[in-house]
Amino acid sequence: MEKLDQDEKEPLYTEIEEALAIEDIHRFRDEFLDMHPYDQSELFEELNETERHLVYSYLSPEEMADVIEHIDKDRVGDVITEMNPTYAAEVLAEVATDDAVDILNDLDKDKVASYLTIMEEEAADEIKDLLHYEEKTAGSIMTTEFVVVTTEMNVKQAMRHLRQEAPDAETIYYIYVVDQDRKLVGVISLRDLIIADGAEIIEDLMSDRIVSVSVGDDQEQIAQMMRDYDFLALPVVDFQHHLLGIITVDDIMDVMEEEANDDYSKLAGVDVDAAELTSIQAAKNRLPWLIILMFLGLFTASIIGRFEATLDQVALLAIFLPLIAGMAGNTGTQALAVAVRGIATGEFQKQGLSKIVMRELTTGVIIGVTCGLSIWGIIYIWQGTLFLGFVVGLSIMTTLLVATVSGALVPLLMHYFKVDPAVASGPFITTINDIISVVIYFGLATMFMQFLI
Amino acid sequence: MEKLDQDEKEPLYTEIEEALAIEDIHRFRDEFLDMHPYDQSELFEELNETERHLVYSYLSPEEMADVIEHIDKDRVGDVITEMNPTYAAEVLAEVATDDAVDILNDLDKDKVASYLTIMEEEAADEIKDLLHYEEKTAGSIMTTEFVVVTTEMNVKQAMRHLRQEAPDAETIYYIYVVDQDRKLVGVISLRDLIIADGAEIIEDLMSDRIVSVSVGDDQEQIAQMMRDYDFLALPVVDFQHHLLGIITVDDIMDVMEEEANDDYSKLAGVDVDAAELTSIQAAKNRLPWLIILMFLGLFTASIIGRFEATLDQVALLAIFLPLIAGMAGNTGTQALAVAVRGIATGEFQKQGLSKIVMRELTTGVIIGVTCGLSIWGIIYIWQGTLFLGFVVGLSIMTTLLVATVSGALVPLLMHYFKVDPAVASGPFITTINDIISVVIYFGLATMFMQFLI
Repeated sequence: MEKLDQDEKEPLYTEIEEALAIEDIHRFRDEFLDMHPYDQSELFEELNETERHLVYSYLSPEEMADVIEHIDKDRVGDVITEMNPTYAAEVLAEVATDDAVDILNDLDKDKVASYLTIMEEEAADEIKDLLHYEEKTAGSIMTTEFVVVTTEMNVKQAMRHLRQEAPDAETIYYIYVVDQDRKLVGVISLRDLIIADGAEIIEDLMSDRIVSVSVGDDQEQIAQMMRDYDFLALPVVDFQHHLLGIITVDDIMDVMEEEANDDYSKLAGVDVDAAELTSIQAAKNRLPWLIILMFLGLFTASIIGRFEATLDQVALLAIFLPLIAGMAGNTGTQALAVAVRGIATGEFQKQGLSKIVMRELTTGVIIGVTCGLSIWGIIYIWQGTLFLGFVVGLSIMTTLLVATVSGALVPLLMHYFKVDPAVASGPFITTINDIISVVIYFGLATMFMQFLI
Repeated sequence: MEKLDQDEKEPLYTEIEEALAIEDIHRFRDEFLDMHPYDQSELFEELNETERHLVYSYLSPEEMADVIEHIDKDRVGDVITEMNPTYAAEVLAEVATDDAVDILNDLDKDKVASYLTIMEEEAADEIKDLLHYEEKTAGSIMTTEFVVVTTEMNVKQAMRHLRQEAPDAETIYYIYVVDQDRKLVGVISLRDLIIADGAEIIEDLMSDRIVSVSVGDDQEQIAQMMRDYDFLALPVVDFQHHLLGIITVDDIMDVMEEEANDDYSKLAGVDVDAAELTSIQAAKNRLPWLIILMFLGLFTASIIGRFEATLDQVALLAIFLPLIAGMAGNTGTQALAVAVRGIATGEFQKQGLSKIVMRELTTGVIIGVTCGLSIWGIIYIWQGTLFLGFVVGLSIMTTLLVATVSGALVPLLMHYFKVDPAVASGPFITTINDIISVVIYFGLATMFMQFLI
């Protein structure tokens, strides 16, 4: 288990690639297996297909499994499928169960089936059990490789059992205690275990009211919990409190990264997690949203079109269009961002809908009045026309209020109705607020027309 | 160490608050100390000042330290300062060193000094050492409570040493091996240690090329590293490879949350991490950006003002202002988001500036041409005027290209020049792109005026 600095890496990598070039299996294995699995995977991803196939023939399924566990999620599927099926199945059997499930979930059903049939039964069964669980639930990120002891064991027996289980277990630092029907009754940390006297009975040592998550729980809440309670692992139970698996902190770090990227992508209206290697991929990634927004923009245009008469009379009105639309968009995005994070951290659920709506309403009023009045003043000084400033200021005031409330309400309502809030992405809210602001602006302008001309 | 479900919590909390009300110290201690520190802190934060002072008199500094470690970062400072200084100092001495440093960093200098003088020397020295380090560096998040063994120890001796150290150490699951001048020479996991034979020598068991970070490293890179290598702790060394401290995964989870919030806040132009309890706080949090953007928006307005002649002749032009500005803004935000994440994950550094610029350029062309041509077609069909569509389409094409490149370049250049990329927040980029798009649009319109009227 070793890691290198970037400057140590490159020479070693080339050395290993040379070993592959001259098909020197011994030198390859010496150097390659000496590295940390993450570095192994990094090097592996640099190799071409012929080199990769050499690696498959040089490494045992168990050795290859370490590499696989660290390969980029988007690519690992292709790697598995290019192996010969028997080898692939053996590798998958050696990969940590939860990772194996992640990989198989991205392959097409019949491939999965064939791998599972070739695979040795025990491993296959473990994987099948996990394949049922919905994505992003506790079940989908838990592993079944954990250590359990029973209440009546003493510390000495528990330690002996632990030593046997350690090699296969995902973590041995929390040991879970179950009763005869495999119900979770306690937990004890290895720390307490090694300090304890050998003769002590587990039941007396274990903590009996333990933190557990149920198999259907959402992964984001679980991440929240792990961060709050500083655990290294969490047990996963069914509704009858049977111990089904454990979730380890390393998987939770991946979940946190994933969730952060999701929120960020929604706000930006682009999948920031997608590896954009070519400009074609980049364009494919960004165009869909832009097309939608283009049509929303055209809709906005058609609305302004209805006010052409107003525009013809006071072309000056157009000057402030971007200002009003822009500020409405920004305010909406701010409110949206605060709401999305508030929901993610559970802060909003605590406060309750009505309280939040009231606050956003008042916030909108404060923001609206502040900006609206300043705009009025500035335009009066700048243009000398009292009424143009009044119309613009009033429009800003109203749009900011509407934008704040809608920006907060949209994600809240979607969360409430369990709709995927992806549609409430930043650009979407922005564009909606563009439309609203334009209607308000020209509506008011038309209303006060006689004062403007 | 126990945690409760939400529905169990409330009754227990009220029970404890009753115990406080009737000043029943025994019932309070029984119930309160029976909970997980996180739940203790959650309850504590619900208490009023009189109740809190009762708690200080009921709990030993050591017991209070557990509560403090889990209290919201924004509030913990006030809690410490309301305690009587001696008690506060004793509590801070018991808190994990890295957390104590976080707390003290938020207090004003002379308070810190007085606490450190009251505090028992050893703890005070440990804290002083950490106070020097810059925020967001390895030094500021590391703890000095770790277990070291020496190369010549055998497993039996190491385990004995471990049992003594365990109670104070932040983690005992990685044991670090140092030579006589405290230089880090190896690491061994408790897992390997308990499997090993008692007579084996540490030097033969330990892995000798280990992952370490240097004390000045950025916390975001360290988080990245921990996630990649799935470590539970990382050793922190100085330039001579002396072991200074360790960073544990629970602190890294907080770092990840913090960094995710930062990026998200920048994109939204609002601090989403700020607890917005009143609408005044919310407005204070959101107004600064809006004011800046208001003036940028007025600047945009003044630019359009210069084209008043053009507007007077073809008021129809105004119709497409929000469309063009909006799309420019969205494209810029997309490019910005991809760049910011690319920098954060180190993906961009790997690819190199020129490669990225080239890609963004081509991406901009693809996006621009696609949207520009469709707009042209649509407007032609809709309005029947070939040239208006041409001007709008050409403007879209150019602005999208500019927006894409600028959106990617701005954060890259700021990263390159080590400027805080906070200024490149989403709304800022959006507004800049508003201005650019307006200039291009009206510039082209004025150029082709004779065809438009």
